Amino acid sequence: MSSSNSPCAACKFLRRKCTQECVFAPYFPPDQPQKFANVHKAFGASNVAKLLNELNAAQHEDAVNSLAYEAEARLRDPVYGCVGLIFILQHRLKQVQTDLYNAKKELATYIGPQAMLPILQPPG
Amino acid sequence: MSSSNSPCAACKFLRRKCTQECVFAPYFPPDQPQKFANVHKAFGASNVAKLLNELNAAQHEDAVNSLAYEAEARLRDPVYGCVGLIFILQHRLKQVQTDLYNAKKELATYIGPQAMLPILQPPG
Repeated sequence: MSSSNSPCAACKFLRRKCTQECVFAPYFPPDQPQKFANVHKAFGASNVAKLLNELNAAQHEDAVNSLAYEAEARLRDPVYGCVGLIFILQHRLKQVQTDLYNAKKELATYIGPQAMLPILQPPG
Repeated sequence: MSSSNSPCAACKFLRRKCTQECVFAPYFPPDQPQKFANVHKAFGASNVAKLLNELNAAQHEDAVNSLAYEAEARLRDPVYGCVGLIFILQHRLKQVQTDLYNAKKELATYIGPQAMLPILQPPG
């Protein structure tokens, strides 16, 4: 049961009684109906419940939030979903890596080959 | 019906007759049973069919492949799924952008402020 004494967004959506043991209630508060509607459309309530039951309670919140993120991405882009964002990020990463390589190569003409090392390391 | 005259991987999994109109057959050949099993576990067959029916046929292949990618990522990482990869890529991108900024700043001490421009552009 959600803290506000109203059924959680999942039980409200599914028109069922929200009990103390409701696996959805902690992550789908009644004031966020869209979050459950999205996850339900993309994955189905029973798949989400099954996934949560396979995880430790401590992992539930992160799992629900990652499912909600995927579900929202799939609504925005029904063809690629969040895989579209992965493509974009991979492409940008490759671009910036090329730019870094070129900048270091140019720098090497001034300060010598040590400009190339360490490449792709976090700044110290 | 799949080209090989055996039911597609989806119909085989669901133990149903694979017809000429099967929406799954072109994307779930009988020799890739795991692809459908993964997508079914993550999204459910009916959700996948519903999504495909909302899209143009020309978009079906990309949609199925992005769903298969998400489903496999969720199997490998039940808590974060492919959202975990998005976090990693965003983090690496930020690192490499910082490295690029620092390399260009150092280069600017040799060739002047034009080293800073264009920052984050693809190499010409």
